[in-house]
This record gives sequence, C-alpha cells and structure tokens, in this order.
Amino acid sequence: MTDASSTPTTTPADHLRARWGSEPGFTPEEWNPTLETMVSHRSVRRWLPADHGGEVTENQIRTIAAAAQSASTSSNKQVVSVVAVRDAQKKRALGEVGGPQQAPHISTAPVVLVWLIDTSRIRAAVQSAQVQKPQVEYTGAEYLDEILVGACDIGINAQNAVTAARSMGLGTCYLGSLRNDAERVGEILGTPAHVVPFLGLEIGHPDPQEPAGIKPRIPQSAYLHWDTYDAAVATDVRNYDQILADYFAQYGKPSSWTRGLVSRVGPKAVKVAKRHLLRRVFEKAGFGLR
Amino acid sequence: MTDASSTPTTTPADHLRARWGSEPGFTPEEWNPTLETMVSHRSVRRWLPADHGGEVTENQIRTIAAAAQSASTSSNKQVVSVVAVRDAQKKRALGEVGGPQQAPHISTAPVVLVWLIDTSRIRAAVQSAQVQKPQVEYTGAEYLDEILVGACDIGINAQNAVTAARSMGLGTCYLGSLRNDAERVGEILGTPAHVVPFLGLEIGHPDPQEPAGIKPRIPQSAYLHWDTYDAAVATDVRNYDQILADYFAQYGKPSSWTRGLVSRVGPKAVKVAKRHLLRRVFEKAGFGLR
Repeated sequence: MTDASSTPTTTPADHLRARWGSEPGFTPEEWNPTLETMVSHRSVRRWLPADHGGEVTENQIRTIAAAAQSASTSSNKQVVSVVAVRDAQKKRALGEVGGPQQAPHISTAPVVLVWLIDTSRIRAAVQSAQVQKPQVEYTGAEYLDEILVGACDIGINAQNAVTAARSMGLGTCYLGSLRNDAERVGEILGTPAHVVPFLGLEIGHPDPQEPAGIKPRIPQSAYLHWDTYDAAVATDVRNYDQILADYFAQYGKPSSWTRGLVSRVGPKAVKVAKRHLLRRVFEKAGFGLR
Repeated sequence: MTDASSTPTTTPADHLRARWGSEPGFTPEEWNPTLETMVSHRSVRRWLPADHGGEVTENQIRTIAAAAQSASTSSNKQVVSVVAVRDAQKKRALGEVGGPQQAPHISTAPVVLVWLIDTSRIRAAVQSAQVQKPQVEYTGAEYLDEILVGACDIGINAQNAVTAARSMGLGTCYLGSLRNDAERVGEILGTPAHVVPFLGLEIGHPDPQEPAGIKPRIPQSAYLHWDTYDAAVATDVRNYDQILADYFAQYGKPSSWTRGLVSRVGPKAVKVAKRHLLRRVFEKAGFGLR
C-alpha cells in the first residue's frame, strides 16, 4: 500500500481549491486515495538521480504497463503498443526531438514510455484472411477516424499509466513534443513503416526541490455542462487569467493564459513544432485520412 | 473510503492472470487499491434502475468531473469540455446515434458524459487579441495535429473519469459510437458549429447479474517493448485467439479475435458506423486537417 496520501489536514475541498485556484463550488460527499491521487496531479520535470533513490525498476514498469493495458480499447482492436526507453543514448535522442526546453528532463528521466499507434496486428490478421478470401481489405485505414481512435486509445491507455505511477509515489510528464518528429522517433525505436510513435511519458521519482505546484484549471462551470452546452459559460474564463498569473508569479514567471493560448496556436508555434509535417508521416504509414 | 476492494484471497497475480487469461510472467512487487481498481476494469452495460439504488448524484458527477479535469492537458490549452446528460429524452436520442446494439444501455444509464473537442476558448482568445493585432491567427486549426491533440486529451481526461467512477463503486462504458453521427450529437447537446462531440461514457451502478467478466488482452510481451520495438513479438498473438474464444464461450458467444478484427476494419463496418462522413464534420467545424 503505497498510495499517495496527503497530510491529515488536507480536505477534499482543499484539493479542489488548489485545482481551480478558487472556491470549488461543491464539497465531495465521497473521497478515497484514488480520487486524491488524480485530483492532486501535477507534471514533474525534475528527477532524483539513480544514486539518490531515483531508480525505476523493471517490475515497476511492468506493473504500470499492466494498468495501462487494462484500460478500455475501442472495439477491442488493441491498436496500441508501448516502448519503454531506458537506454541513455536513446533518451538523449528523444530529448533532441523534444527540443531544447524538454531535452534536459527527457534525457534524465529514468524511463520514457513511448506509445505507438500500432496497426500491425490488424494488418497481420487481414493478410492472413486474404489467403482464403483475397477480397478482404483494411478499409478503416483509409479514413480519418482510424488515427483518431489510435490517439484517443493512447490517451486512455497512458492516463492509466500516469495514475498507476502516481499511486506508487512516482511522478510523470507527458511528451506530445515527440510528434515534432515522429519519423525520427520511429528510427530511434526501430518501428516499421506503418507504426506511428504518438505520445511520450517520462516516469521517475520527483525531485522535491522542483519549483512547481498544482497548476489551476479553468473553473468547473466552463468545463462541465448539464444536458445542454452553454457557449457563454464555456468561454467565461475572465478570472482564470488572474488565477494562473498568480500561480506562475509564485515561481517568478509572468503569464497570461489567453495571451499564451494565442501564441501557442499561431503560425510560429506550428512551424517550430513541425506539426505541418505530421500529416505526411501518417500518409507514409499507410493512413488515408479521408 | 469506498475504493473497490477484492476478496482477501485475490492476489495481484490473480488479477493479472484474469487480465491476460494466462500466466502474467511477473509478480508485482508493489500493489495498492488504485492499481487494483485499474487492473480489474471491465466495461458495464447493464445498470441498476434508480428505484433499486441505481441513482448517480450530481455530487458524484461533479467529483468524477473534478478528477477528469485534473488530468494533464496538452500545452495547457484545455480544449476539452464535457456535457453530463441525464435528461431521458436526450439519452434516448444519443442511443439512436449509438445504434440498436447500444441504445438499450445508453438510454438506461443514469448519466452519459459526452466529451467535446472544444476550441471555443482559443477562438475567443484569438478574436480578442485581433482587436489590437489584426494579424493574429488560429493557424493550429489548419493542421491535423489539432484534432489529434483533442482526441488524445479527451482520452486522458475521460480515463480519469473512469478510474474515479470505479473507485466510487460505479461502472462505466465508453461510447466511441457517438461518432457515428457527431453532428446529430451536437444538435442534441446544442453545441456551436466549431465544437465537435467526440466520445461518450455511460456511468451507473453495475447490475451484478450482467453476464460479463474481465476480457483478456493480448500478452504484455506483444504490447510492451524494451528500448527497441520488436515487430515479430508485437504480432505474436497466436494463443490470444484461443484465450479470447474461451472467455466468450463462458457467455455462450463464439468469437475469434483475428476474424473479428478483419470484420471490424472492413468496408461494411466503416459504412455502418458512417466513419466515412466524419472528416466532413471536422471540416465544417473549421478544422483544416492539413
């Protein structure tokens, strides 16, 4: 039993207050260590070194992967595989894909899990069926939904890994930045042409000195709607800019959420992250995207 | 503390044996109720009625949504919103979108959460910035990655909801089938043109009479690779067809995983699920998909 546990004075309402940086608007009537593990989540980007108790064992990785693989998978198609990267040279190479800001924590993480959209098993089943019935086809690969299912199943799968790791006292950080150059990631991991690396996750023992806390989210009212979507409420994040600025000010960083959003979706951000090249990666992997 | 707990005789190895339908190949050295909640997951499709203790309260939904919203979000863009559907007529309408097999459990679930790819907040921030700087643009919307981020963030988000619900003794079932007609789902929920309904999740109290158990997955060896992807091992699922057939035989259903895969990716399955129309839904919502 190594579930994350708070100091006894931290109530569920305290956790929610930290999550939103404001009054939660309700008090949970039920609470348990699993909820606490999830609600107190933060990303970790600084790791204890191996010689200071920072090692993540093969047994821990297998246990985390068992939780990940236990998550639902669309139509039981199981189009997800994972590579656990512990090799120092490969981690450095993944860090180069992630970019200069992320390279230091990618290369020092004890393990980086990389989720792949992996249709190998479907392709093998279709090929094998074609021996008897030559007209059998992998039609799904021609349509956009196939990679959306892959992306969503990977999110579902990976989030179980995050919760498992955190329940064991470990920290995590997602790496969407591996899609800066998914082809290069494929070279590093030795994946075949039709397998697309999609998402990374660093796992390690959090360095308690890291200057980071629970980053507040937009209010629940903007996120959670009842029976009918309310467009006015969804975009009512007036107070959130200030809440997030207050959070970042604790760490000496100026910030505005809305200004940050604008820069993260602008032409420069797309080019820096090379996301304009991603479609070609999927096409080369045999996806039609119609 | 209402964490799911097993009978004392169920060991971690027992849970893993059920998960793979075979010897797990390792014994977890750490274990806790959160891991157990995830590893013992199964989808639930039969619900206790409200007058038999089947109610899911607003407080429970808010607690589950707090866990969901606490999950990581790509670049803190928060492009995800959720509608909690409890209205009987709306649930029936969602059931019609899901199709005849799914309609009975969709319409009887106490609540259906529907996740939306919601770029409203980005669009509002960009519009507001354009007042000062007319050259500001939402360039990200032109590229494929934008909806992949949405799909993956929804998976991450929704899986926390699943784990939260299960930790509270509730059951869940994902509904990718709402993408059979995402436009109709948008009408039911009243979403604006640029918001795309993407994934549903039924939540309720499991009917203990439901004939279903833990569906085995492909072996961990095919799913989890070490430093380098091994294509031969990834597709080595020879024994899995038999394991899954044995599982379904318990419920009187014949099954072959590989034959099922072939039919689920063929031309008929794509047309029945109308996934060939999905690209148009995203285009109408203002996504370029380049």
